[in-house]
Amino acid sequence: MPYELFYWPEIQGRGEFVRLALEDAGAPYVDVARGKGAGKGVAAMTRILRSSSEAPIPFAPPFLRDGGVIVSHVANILMYLGPKLGLAPHDDEGRAFANGLQLTITDVVAEVHDTHHPISNGLYYEDQKEAAKARASAFLSERAKKFLGYFERILAENPKGPSHSVGAAPTYVDLSLFQLLEGLRYAFPRATADLDARYPLLAALASRVRARPRIAAYLASPRRIPFNESGVFRHYPELDQDPA
Amino acid sequence: MPYELFYWPEIQGRGEFVRLALEDAGAPYVDVARGKGAGKGVAAMTRILRSSSEAPIPFAPPFLRDGGVIVSHVANILMYLGPKLGLAPHDDEGRAFANGLQLTITDVVAEVHDTHHPISNGLYYEDQKEAAKARASAFLSERAKKFLGYFERILAENPKGPSHSVGAAPTYVDLSLFQLLEGLRYAFPRATADLDARYPLLAALASRVRARPRIAAYLASPRRIPFNESGVFRHYPELDQDPA
Repeated sequence: MPYELFYWPEIQGRGEFVRLALEDAGAPYVDVARGKGAGKGVAAMTRILRSSSEAPIPFAPPFLRDGGVIVSHVANILMYLGPKLGLAPHDDEGRAFANGLQLTITDVVAEVHDTHHPISNGLYYEDQKEAAKARASAFLSERAKKFLGYFERILAENPKGPSHSVGAAPTYVDLSLFQLLEGLRYAFPRATADLDARYPLLAALASRVRARPRIAAYLASPRRIPFNESGVFRHYPELDQDPA
Repeated sequence: MPYELFYWPEIQGRGEFVRLALEDAGAPYVDVARGKGAGKGVAAMTRILRSSSEAPIPFAPPFLRDGGVIVSHVANILMYLGPKLGLAPHDDEGRAFANGLQLTITDVVAEVHDTHHPISNGLYYEDQKEAAKARASAFLSERAKKFLGYFERILAENPKGPSHSVGAAPTYVDLSLFQLLEGLRYAFPRATADLDARYPLLAALASRVRARPRIAAYLASPRRIPFNESGVFRHYPELDQDPA
């Protein structure tokens, strides 16, 4: 039985971190809300979220259904899927480290989201643009450097070498770091212009992920939704700035 | 060998969710940065964060050291500790559900933090007060209700009864929900005035946690740092409002 991924059908968003792991592993999965009769897929997702009988109700998409098991939150889904897909470290210690890294990626992604929605998700971007400019500037000047510098160090100090974030083999964390860099480059082309020079290990990792056969095939397929201004990573030129 | 918790010594903050689990279990632990010669404790924490040899370097406190293992991020630490402390479900499915709930708590806590720091952690509250008012109002009018309503539903729909969030026994998630309610009541006494009436199951759960013998002893001890305006939950009357 294929995995069922429940996520918004028109954006990469947070669901993309899960899609990349499923795609890289060549795992059978259904992107439920994007399936035939997409309206029905979204309705199926909403039905679970509003259910009064499915005990492990998720707070929000993305969530994964694997037979009778429902798992929500990106990092939790990836921790659940990782070992099954051959994309997790084999030892508990490595898995805890991978999960810690994934949760740090979760934090950056939330901060990226808040660069365009610093006040409320219930307001349009246009109605919080001034605050967005201030938040985006703080993110690009301080936070992005802190996060990316951290991940670069993680690669540099990996006892198994700088080709992977955890251990000696690719994990879902590597795939997520690729997606993070893709998103940042899309949203902030000016601020990331020096990314390759400043974070060479991270940039090299992202290039290797992009070249993995199943990832390359996925990126070239219609399954890969283009970045757009409804997702987490949005390109608003007025929020971008020169490298700090 | 006692667990070593590394967190800022002057606030409850995110570390408090870990402290509560350790305290409830009566587990031996050292709150390193609060130990004798507290300056030295903070220095020890910083040394690990800046280390170029400790492979699983955390991005930020809190983190836990258990012998040779370092685990970072609250939800990750609690998932690691939960089974050892007898505060986690026994089955994998329950553990994935507990972790999903804890990650939802992580998200609320981050949103609470951003009510007073919506633009940048690098700026004083006073320098982002107007944005803070807008963000706090959106949080209290929309988001808090959504989150608390969700947790109330989780209790109501627990097949094992509404006394616990997961399964038939207390878990670290229950302790964290107590802390979340404590924090919200401290930060927003006006907005939470009707909390007991609106979320009776959640309020009852929090009362039961508060009465657990080791928790009661902890709360009455000097180990429990009072809430203050340096932590995540801050009481700024101008950010509070009547119940929505």
